[in-house]
Amino acid sequence: MMSELKLFVEPRTLKGFQDLLPEDLIPRKAVVAVIESIFQKYGFSPLETPALEHLDVLLGAGGEETNKELFRLESPEGEPIALRFDLTVPFARLLAQYPDKLKAPFRRYAMGSVWRADKPGPGRFRQFTQFDVDAAGSESVAVDAEIIAVMCEVMDALGVSDYAVVINNRKVIDALLLSCGIGELPRQKHVLRVIDKLNKVGMANVRLELGLGRIDDSGDPIPGMGLDDATIDKVVTFVGLKGGTRAEVVARLTEALPSTEETIAAVAEMQTLADALAALGVSEAHAVFDPSLARGLDYYTGPVFETVIRSAPEFGSVMGGGRYDGLVSRFMDRAIPSTGMSVGLDRLLAALAHLGAVSTAKTSVQALVVSLGGVPDAESLRIASELRAAGIRAEAYFGAKRSMKVQLSHADHYEIPVAIIVGGDELAAGVVSVKDLLAGKRERADIGDREAYRQAGKAGQVTVPRAEMVETVKGLLQG
Amino acid sequence: MMSELKLFVEPRTLKGFQDLLPEDLIPRKAVVAVIESIFQKYGFSPLETPALEHLDVLLGAGGEETNKELFRLESPEGEPIALRFDLTVPFARLLAQYPDKLKAPFRRYAMGSVWRADKPGPGRFRQFTQFDVDAAGSESVAVDAEIIAVMCEVMDALGVSDYAVVINNRKVIDALLLSCGIGELPRQKHVLRVIDKLNKVGMANVRLELGLGRIDDSGDPIPGMGLDDATIDKVVTFVGLKGGTRAEVVARLTEALPSTEETIAAVAEMQTLADALAALGVSEAHAVFDPSLARGLDYYTGPVFETVIRSAPEFGSVMGGGRYDGLVSRFMDRAIPSTGMSVGLDRLLAALAHLGAVSTAKTSVQALVVSLGGVPDAESLRIASELRAAGIRAEAYFGAKRSMKVQLSHADHYEIPVAIIVGGDELAAGVVSVKDLLAGKRERADIGDREAYRQAGKAGQVTVPRAEMVETVKGLLQG
Repeated sequence: MMSELKLFVEPRTLKGFQDLLPEDLIPRKAVVAVIESIFQKYGFSPLETPALEHLDVLLGAGGEETNKELFRLESPEGEPIALRFDLTVPFARLLAQYPDKLKAPFRRYAMGSVWRADKPGPGRFRQFTQFDVDAAGSESVAVDAEIIAVMCEVMDALGVSDYAVVINNRKVIDALLLSCGIGELPRQKHVLRVIDKLNKVGMANVRLELGLGRIDDSGDPIPGMGLDDATIDKVVTFVGLKGGTRAEVVARLTEALPSTEETIAAVAEMQTLADALAALGVSEAHAVFDPSLARGLDYYTGPVFETVIRSAPEFGSVMGGGRYDGLVSRFMDRAIPSTGMSVGLDRLLAALAHLGAVSTAKTSVQALVVSLGGVPDAESLRIASELRAAGIRAEAYFGAKRSMKVQLSHADHYEIPVAIIVGGDELAAGVVSVKDLLAGKRERADIGDREAYRQAGKAGQVTVPRAEMVETVKGLLQG
Repeated sequence: MMSELKLFVEPRTLKGFQDLLPEDLIPRKAVVAVIESIFQKYGFSPLETPALEHLDVLLGAGGEETNKELFRLESPEGEPIALRFDLTVPFARLLAQYPDKLKAPFRRYAMGSVWRADKPGPGRFRQFTQFDVDAAGSESVAVDAEIIAVMCEVMDALGVSDYAVVINNRKVIDALLLSCGIGELPRQKHVLRVIDKLNKVGMANVRLELGLGRIDDSGDPIPGMGLDDATIDKVVTFVGLKGGTRAEVVARLTEALPSTEETIAAVAEMQTLADALAALGVSEAHAVFDPSLARGLDYYTGPVFETVIRSAPEFGSVMGGGRYDGLVSRFMDRAIPSTGMSVGLDRLLAALAHLGAVSTAKTSVQALVVSLGGVPDAESLRIASELRAAGIRAEAYFGAKRSMKVQLSHADHYEIPVAIIVGGDELAAGVVSVKDLLAGKRERADIGDREAYRQAGKAGQVTVPRAEMVETVKGLLQG
């Protein structure tokens, strides 16, 4: 019995993974092209590493959480290997592996998939795309300023105007914490985590978490850090120093922080960064100093920054990064000071789509060649060739059923803007009909009357000599 | 003792995998852009699927060999999963999974990594890139003709002139085999495998393998198929029918093959394909009919084709494909006739590099800002900004050591074409020195004398007012 039965493999995508259809990829490719040209303009060169790495290269590089989220497997030789969880660790490996070829200073950009066996959710995938720039081999915050300028230029070029690159410096936070007597790393990290929650939970709750603790919305207790009121005041005053120009924030920091050696150096670095941003013409409206920005990752050592879209705060930060001067020394007996940032491409695209700032095309095709009875396939090919030779992206319809209705419904389904219609009569007369499909669609949308609807269906249709076809189509596509 | 020792993770790439440095990726990206624009012009839209698939989606789809070569792992939910081994099987899955969105006819292109746990060797990697076009939902060989036209246009656009797209049709081979009384699939496949070896082993050995067998170079016996001489003559005559125009090959086939129903239909399809190629303006020199082409894969059902570069035969076929009308029915109770081809990107790039037909740039950077003592970083940033605003890809040097020698040696190492040199004096005078680094390099290459060498090092260096910097750099880059 079983052998009589034809069994099909169920076509399905893995949980937490996504198929990208043309309607997803067309805007994505346009955004990537914009970003890539900016990355190149700032002197970053392309680089790619394999999806798989030796396990020890990845293990421990990103902390406990990423260790747990690795997709692990075995090489054909039986070695433990895993899919990469970011592009920064492989970059650090490369810097150590090819010191002669990739002489510092070295700037690279990279785009690629990364994998994390995370709990999937809306907008959270187990395979997602990172698009990174990193500059290795320079301690100068001039380079951090360039990374921030790249962030601004990307948002400008994508047509987003109400964005903010929020900037802070880990050294400033460290200096504050030291001045508060919080020198031990675990306690420093704890304060950072609490500060990081400011936008989510509000200042009152931050105070409680720094002090005696609180009960959260679900009724669970969040233990406090037990800092005294004076110290909490200091921390809270510090994170509240934002607002105004970058110079104003630096001035307030200078005033608010005790003048220790660390503080003076840290605030001076902020001032140097401010000068560099001014030299690059980065506007005060778009790049702001904010002492409340902490950023979660352990490895940051200097400036940190992230980009948010003010009118789409629910998408969180769409780009983020900072200076990490110690990561390469995981692989070699030498530090290569580095800074960089990562574009969260999936999140950025979701935010841009929400703002209506990207293409909604469902196909690359600009013109469909519709051929009716009496027209040989070879003639459809010739028409498509003429369009393509003029740079028009053309498809000739060669489906099994070839009625006018079926072919126009194909164009309609994929929202192809123009159809070239040719039948036996047109062929004999040396003409084609060129139809503006989007115009017809626009008009029909408002029509109830059946006959008027039918008439409107012919809207934007003209019959032209074959020699004028290309120019007519171009006119419609530009219009 | 151990705790005193700092242990480093050895930076290394997995066996059979490759890191792509800027010198690899710069030509690759240029080639991909050329190919992608042609794919789009022919009406193909972009599509991407995840790297990982459920094991049953992949298992058996490519035959025994690919089954063995799968990189297998487990999903976080414990399901068996694997890395994809090609882009065609995931495409077939998609057609079955999204029948409403991806209505046939549907044309897509896709580029992505695929993984095969193969034995690595020179030019053979366990992760490599495929770049495919496929057109689903049409039985018409007009579409196969378009795929062949795409292959030709890709080679033309890449500046390769001595290529050949070799074309055959599985139906013609099947008709021949049937007429020889070879109707059983395993024996048909065996003949195909033998024919496929023609270019490697020569006609005499093909005859032996079809007949009584032979001893190969290593002394191992290759058993023969035991065909009689008359049948071998028929097969050998058939595969020798190549040469001349496509119409001439069709005429020879008509004459040579017995006029059965299958043969007449198969040869008629070749004639239709020839007409379609003519309609598309595909030259006789570049697309040739060759009855000896078999292609290994089981799933081809009609036209098959592959592209070879005549002056670089050692790279084998750089693109290949054919019609596969049955693959989608693995996932659903319906066949979607499809055809397509895959660019072997790694192999194509190796062949183009061998022919000197691609960029040998080591960096995206066109201009390096070299600043000497007395110039603040902010000033270097301003200069870089001016260059970038004019579309010039610029890097400002911010390495730890900033002597003229170190900075120019950086430019030299990465073969950056232009340096903008600015010191305290230049800054005060409102000028910069613009240096054509490649000119100097060209001249110095031929010089033995030390002083002449030093002088030549200054070749192509001009001092210009800051306002003329951009135009001067542009002039050098265009020259």
